[in-house]
Amino acid sequence: ASRGYNQSGRCLTEMNLNLLPLLVPTAKMKKVNLFDYAWALQDAGALYTKQRISDTFSIPRKVAITELAPRENTVKVTWSDRHSSLYSYSWLGVHTHKKINRRPGGSPLRLRPFRFFKQGRDELPTVSYEEVMDGDFAVLEWLENIYQWGFCFVKGVPVDPHATEELLERISFIRNTHYGGFWDFTSDLTFKDTAYTSEFLGAHTDNTYFTDPARLQLFHLLSHTDGDGGTNLLVDGFQAASILNEENPGAAKALLSVKHPFHASGNDDVCIQPADHFPVFRNHGYLRELYQIRWNNYDRAPKRDWWVDEQQRWYDAARHFDQIIRRPEMEVWTQLQPGTALIFDNWRMLHGRSQFTGKRRMCGGYINNDDFISRYRLLKFGREAVLRHIGDTTRHFTNPSRFI
Amino acid sequence: ASRGYNQSGRCLTEMNLNLLPLLVPTAKMKKVNLFDYAWALQDAGALYTKQRISDTFSIPRKVAITELAPRENTVKVTWSDRHSSLYSYSWLGVHTHKKINRRPGGSPLRLRPFRFFKQGRDELPTVSYEEVMDGDFAVLEWLENIYQWGFCFVKGVPVDPHATEELLERISFIRNTHYGGFWDFTSDLTFKDTAYTSEFLGAHTDNTYFTDPARLQLFHLLSHTDGDGGTNLLVDGFQAASILNEENPGAAKALLSVKHPFHASGNDDVCIQPADHFPVFRNHGYLRELYQIRWNNYDRAPKRDWWVDEQQRWYDAARHFDQIIRRPEMEVWTQLQPGTALIFDNWRMLHGRSQFTGKRRMCGGYINNDDFISRYRLLKFGREAVLRHIGDTTRHFTNPSRFI
Repeated sequence: ASRGYNQSGRCLTEMNLNLLPLLVPTAKMKKVNLFDYAWALQDAGALYTKQRISDTFSIPRKVAITELAPRENTVKVTWSDRHSSLYSYSWLGVHTHKKINRRPGGSPLRLRPFRFFKQGRDELPTVSYEEVMDGDFAVLEWLENIYQWGFCFVKGVPVDPHATEELLERISFIRNTHYGGFWDFTSDLTFKDTAYTSEFLGAHTDNTYFTDPARLQLFHLLSHTDGDGGTNLLVDGFQAASILNEENPGAAKALLSVKHPFHASGNDDVCIQPADHFPVFRNHGYLRELYQIRWNNYDRAPKRDWWVDEQQRWYDAARHFDQIIRRPEMEVWTQLQPGTALIFDNWRMLHGRSQFTGKRRMCGGYINNDDFISRYRLLKFGREAVLRHIGDTTRHFTNPSRFI
Repeated sequence: ASRGYNQSGRCLTEMNLNLLPLLVPTAKMKKVNLFDYAWALQDAGALYTKQRISDTFSIPRKVAITELAPRENTVKVTWSDRHSSLYSYSWLGVHTHKKINRRPGGSPLRLRPFRFFKQGRDELPTVSYEEVMDGDFAVLEWLENIYQWGFCFVKGVPVDPHATEELLERISFIRNTHYGGFWDFTSDLTFKDTAYTSEFLGAHTDNTYFTDPARLQLFHLLSHTDGDGGTNLLVDGFQAASILNEENPGAAKALLSVKHPFHASGNDDVCIQPADHFPVFRNHGYLRELYQIRWNNYDRAPKRDWWVDEQQRWYDAARHFDQIIRRPEMEVWTQLQPGTALIFDNWRMLHGRSQFTGKRRMCGGYINNDDFISRYRLLKFGREAVLRHIGDTTRHFTNPSRFI
């Protein structure tokens, strides 16, 4: 996995005498890497808990290398304070200092690789309940579908909330919110949120009012009696953002840069707001790619700290985006069925539903980004590679930290 | 509460004919405010669920005011599409568009008002379990202490995990993590994290590896037998940041701007990392104030995407900060006792403990920022004021959204 990686560029700055750097020839003896002693040491000794247990800041700044002993797979370094360290070439290789992904200019909106699902053209991504419960290989297939397509169905799920909860827990524990954890409800107005009525719900993302919106949401329709309707709507927000960027780059920029307040105040005892204002499109720091969409006109609060021109630009952009997500070719309509659960990426996919009559019993739950991504990367790359690439900011497909 | 607010400056831009704006005289008839129709309408009709139920983007851009009828406390506006809206002057007052907190220049590090606890000078902030369980007034006193001092003790807690859990739930539900929810453990190595050993733990914040670190943490020592030690350490990160900024503004700037990877990989089945890299000091968007500290040398992963000069600057800054938080006048050492619970603000306070011998049984739990802040603002200001000020970015102490 690190072969492709090693071909990427390395940087070499001039020697800094104050740093007293360590020059380590790589395994192939072709390139020279530069290391700061404190920096190199900071991972030493972290064998058992994978946490750093040496006290980084007690290391004297002025320390020199007294001996450098290259072996076949490792190099032993002896320092002027008599401490010695052993580094493998592969560890040194991926820890070479690089500065990338910082090219200014170009479009502000960039998408990670993903697959756009077009109804009528593509087959619905689906995995089997039995296989997912049976082994991790099917879990990886499930998560891969969610990551690539933005959603996935699970067929053959027992029509039972407990079994559905166990299915979701194959990914991770279920997130608690002020609404509760795993839920199971029949449509009524117990919670004063429009999601709990039987009306039409336009395409939106959930949890825009949280500092950290849930990454995954699962729905399982347990029963629908005395009526019909309630077809599920999914719209790929990444695809819509990409179209907006093509048709109107300035609009994409407005949705990336203007930050809004959001809130959830339906229940009398809460007024949940994110810790800060957030944009509709959120760009990732080191990858410079769109990674999170907040789109819920129901929960967005009036922004006050802007001028009329900025406001007009933003509303024009929002109107354009809204128009794109309503185009028929963007919509994926599916009828939920008892026995088939739907899970989707709430940082990317907008969801909604048509109006329905009668009585519906649904269950479902949320999973956090951090837990989903941890599980996905570990299954996809294995523990050793995931650990080795922590902090790796390259966009190469062999870098687990590139999957956000 | 809105009197002080009304004295702050208002902005007035020139009429934009394309917007066909609404000019509304304020109650005092002294100032003129400018409103965008779409913007003003977006909150109309949101009476029941407090969510926006009118479809903002279906509003035609070219709409004019046909009638403006000021009354004593409200103004009735009739629009060219025959829709009419009723606005109270107080609502219009706080929704006046302003652009503030964006003065460039000056120190990059600014602190919100807070109280620094100095051991030997101040009395430990303490509330009583009985009163907190009895009514919301004592809960507000509790949260006020946490917000102002960064921590608070609760005395008279039954020496029992269940009662401790109920105490914590007076604030909000308890956060689940991959370690579980409310915990109750005796020191051993069940979880492979250094927090679970009996060694000395330097001052740090928890959850640096989460996209959204827990805001509050509660500890309750249930028993300590066959040994001693394990004194609790608290260090006020805001005070330390303020000192760093005074002694070395460039260092404060380095800790604000350089972003790092973090991880929690102690257990074989997870490798939790935040969704992005984060700085040690995090500045708030609209308030331009420090609001979150991530400081855990055990969980910080080697950063790769930087040059040697940036690296050196950051390590010098980190070394300086580390030196400040070790100064005796910064440290608050307290001996935990069965019956007295400690809760602290994990976005601000660093915590640690001295080495201990014997067997300790502790219980505790985390609470999210969003739930803590919701509870605090509602108790402090009342629901009506909290809702009225959503999106208010002023730093005035009568603005609930100013309390972050």
